[in-house]
Amino acid sequence: MSLIVQKYGGTSVGNPERIRNVANRIAEWHRKGDRIVAVVSAMSGVTDSLIKLAKEVCDEPAEREMDMLLATGEQTTISLLAMALHSLGIPAFSLTGAQAGIVTDGKHTKAKIANITPNQVKQHLDAGAVVIVAGFQGQTMEGQITTLGRGGSDLTAIAIAAAIKADICQIYTDVDGVYSADPRIVPNATKIQEISYDEMLEMAGAGSKVMQARSVEFAKKFGVKFEVRSSFNNNPGTIVKEENKSMENVVVRGVSVEKNQAKVTISGVPDKPGIAAKLFQAIAEAGVNVDMIVQNVSQSGETDITFTLNKDDVKKANKITGSITELSSAKSVTVKEGIAKLSVVGIGMRSHSGVASSLFAALSEQGINIQMISTSEIKITVVIDEDRSADAVKAVHDKFELNLIK
Amino acid sequence: MSLIVQKYGGTSVGNPERIRNVANRIAEWHRKGDRIVAVVSAMSGVTDSLIKLAKEVCDEPAEREMDMLLATGEQTTISLLAMALHSLGIPAFSLTGAQAGIVTDGKHTKAKIANITPNQVKQHLDAGAVVIVAGFQGQTMEGQITTLGRGGSDLTAIAIAAAIKADICQIYTDVDGVYSADPRIVPNATKIQEISYDEMLEMAGAGSKVMQARSVEFAKKFGVKFEVRSSFNNNPGTIVKEENKSMENVVVRGVSVEKNQAKVTISGVPDKPGIAAKLFQAIAEAGVNVDMIVQNVSQSGETDITFTLNKDDVKKANKITGSITELSSAKSVTVKEGIAKLSVVGIGMRSHSGVASSLFAALSEQGINIQMISTSEIKITVVIDEDRSADAVKAVHDKFELNLIK
Repeated sequence: MSLIVQKYGGTSVGNPERIRNVANRIAEWHRKGDRIVAVVSAMSGVTDSLIKLAKEVCDEPAEREMDMLLATGEQTTISLLAMALHSLGIPAFSLTGAQAGIVTDGKHTKAKIANITPNQVKQHLDAGAVVIVAGFQGQTMEGQITTLGRGGSDLTAIAIAAAIKADICQIYTDVDGVYSADPRIVPNATKIQEISYDEMLEMAGAGSKVMQARSVEFAKKFGVKFEVRSSFNNNPGTIVKEENKSMENVVVRGVSVEKNQAKVTISGVPDKPGIAAKLFQAIAEAGVNVDMIVQNVSQSGETDITFTLNKDDVKKANKITGSITELSSAKSVTVKEGIAKLSVVGIGMRSHSGVASSLFAALSEQGINIQMISTSEIKITVVIDEDRSADAVKAVHDKFELNLIK
Repeated sequence: MSLIVQKYGGTSVGNPERIRNVANRIAEWHRKGDRIVAVVSAMSGVTDSLIKLAKEVCDEPAEREMDMLLATGEQTTISLLAMALHSLGIPAFSLTGAQAGIVTDGKHTKAKIANITPNQVKQHLDAGAVVIVAGFQGQTMEGQITTLGRGGSDLTAIAIAAAIKADICQIYTDVDGVYSADPRIVPNATKIQEISYDEMLEMAGAGSKVMQARSVEFAKKFGVKFEVRSSFNNNPGTIVKEENKSMENVVVRGVSVEKNQAKVTISGVPDKPGIAAKLFQAIAEAGVNVDMIVQNVSQSGETDITFTLNKDDVKKANKITGSITELSSAKSVTVKEGIAKLSVVGIGMRSHSGVASSLFAALSEQGINIQMISTSEIKITVVIDEDRSADAVKAVHDKFELNLIK
C-alpha cells in the first residue's frame, strides 16, 4: 500500500506491444493496492523522427518551436498507456507536463523545474486512478511549453515523487541496477542493494551512466528515495537514498572505469598567480571540456599542469597547444591519448584509512603504472593506460572484495 | 493592410515540402503588410496513424484519451510551420488551441467552443509576428484537452476570426470556391463570387461538401466574412457573407445534386395525431438518419408518408419495415434505392416567383419524372431517378442561365 512514482524510458514504451507490457506491470502494482504515478518518455525513435521533420523545414529550428514539436512525443505515449490500462480495466488518466503542474523557467530545450503544483495528479490518485504523466516537459508561468533536456524524464519522475511525497520513485531502465563494477568486464561484480546519493553521484560522474547527475542531485536535495531497476524482469534493483551508519561500514562501494580519455601536460610553467586562470579560460573558449586537473608543488619556481579531456576534444586541444605555450610561458605542451580513468567510490572512505594504499597496491601488483592521482572525500581516481583498464578494474574489484558485499 | 485568418487543411500541409509552400504563401501576405493568423490541421495521414496506434493498445479508446492523442497532430504542424516561416525570415509563433484561448465544453471528441480569449494571439500579432494556431482543438475551463470533431479546424478559424475581428477568414482547400454546379457534371458552371450565409448553408446541406454547416452557422452568427479558395493557386475564391440587396437580384445561386439516396414510402397510414411521432422515434432508435420528410394531405382518412435516407442506412431501414407497418397501421412500406436529390438554392427566391415552375419545366423538357418535392424559403428540392441526375443538373443550370452569372 505505497505511493509509487514509476518512470519508463523510450525503449520500455517503444511500440504498442511494449506499452501493453508496461500497462500489465503497472496493473500488477495497482491491483496490490499501491497508488501509482507513471512518468513516460516518447516512444523510442519518435523524437528522432520529429527532429528530422524539423530539419526538413528549417536549418536551425528555434528552440521554442522545437519544444512545441518534441512535447508531442510524450503526449502520444501518455494517452496510449492510459488506453492500454483501460483495456485491462484499470482506471487511468494521462496528464501533460503542464497539466501535472510542472512549472519551469523559460530556457527552452533545457528548462529547469521551478516548482510543481500537482493538484490534478493528487485528485486522480485520490479517485483511485493510475496517473500517467508526460516526462521531459513542463510549462512556464506564462503558459509556454518547455522541455527539460537530456535525462529530463528521470527528473520529472524524481520531482513529482518529491512533490507528492511518494514512498519511492522507481526508475525502470535497461539495466538491472547499479553494480560494483561493469559486469561485462568483471564477471563476479555484484548488484548493489543500497547506495547513498553521494556515492551514486560519484559513480555516475565516473562513467556508470545509469542516470544523469542533476536527477540524483534533485533527489538528494528533496530526500527522494529512488530505485534503479529493469523494465524487462521483476528483480529488485538498487535503492538510492540518504546515507546511514551501515553504509559507512563498506569502504568501497564500487569501481568504475572511463575509457576514451586523453591528457594534456603543460610542463615548465612559471609558478606565478593568474597563469592557471588565463590558461583555462583560453581552453574553455576553444570548446575543450576539461575534466581532472592536477598540479603538483613547484620546484625551482616552475610547475607542471596536467588535465584530462574526452578523446573527442583532442583535435580542438591540438589546435591550441601553441597559444597555451605562449599564455603560460611553458617549456612544452604534450597531448597524449590512450589513457583511462579508474575510480573507487564509497562513503566509508571518510572514516576508513588505507583505501588509497590498497588501490595503489592492487595496481602495482599487476604492473600497472599510475600516471595521475586525484581524490575527493569519497572517491579516488587514477589515470592509467587504457590498454590495462580491464585488468585494473578486475584487480581493484578483487582487492576490495566487492564480490562479497551485499 | 488587413487582419486575415487563414485556414490550411491536412492536404495543404501534408509533408515538409507542402508546409514550406504554405509558409511561402503566408510570407507573401505578411510582406504586403497584412497581419496573418494561420490555423492548420494535422498533416494528412497523421490522424489516421494515431487512431491505428490507439486501436493497437485498446479496442475502444476512451474519448478523453483520444483527444489527448489526436491533439498532438496539429501541435506537430504548428511548430513545423513556424519553423518554415522562420527560415524565410518571418517572425512566427505557434499556439496550441489552449494557448490560443479556445475554451470548449467537456464533450470529448466533439466539443463545442464556449468562448475565446485570444490574448496570446493578439500579443504576438501586435509584435508583428505571424501567429499559427492548432485547429480542431481546445481545452475546457478545467484544463482538459478537447477536440472539436469533423471540420473542427474550419470552426477554429472562423471562431478566431470572430474573436479578433479579422477583416476576412480565408479557408484554403482543394477546390477553387463554390460553383453554380459541380464543374465535373456541368462544364460551363461558374465560380460564385459572393454568396450569403443562408445560401451557403443550403448548398452545403445539399451536397456541395466544401464546408460543414456548423462552421457556416458560426460565421453567420458572428458576422464573419469568409472566403473559400484554393491552396494550389492564387485565384480569388468565393466570398461568403451577409446577404445584401444585389444578391437578391439573382434568383437561383446554384444547383446541386446528392446521389446515393433512398426513400421509404409508408402508404395508407390512418390520419391520426401521434402516429408520425411514434413512427420517427422508432426509426431514430434504429439508427436510421432521416433527411427529407414529405406527407401530403389525407384522402378518405388515410395518408402516405415518404422520407429519404442515405443509401448506407437502407439495411437498417429494411430491418424495421415490419415494426413500421405495425406502429403506423399502414397498408404497405416500400424501400427504394437509386434516387437522387436535386436542389436549387437562392435568396432571390424570396422575392421572385416562378422558380418552381421553371425548375419543373426544365425537368419535364428532359422527360425526367419528379418523385418528391420539398421547399424551404430559399431552396427547392426534388427527388428524381439517380440515373438521370446529370441530365437534370445540366438542364436546370441552363434553364436558370447560371453560366452567365458572375
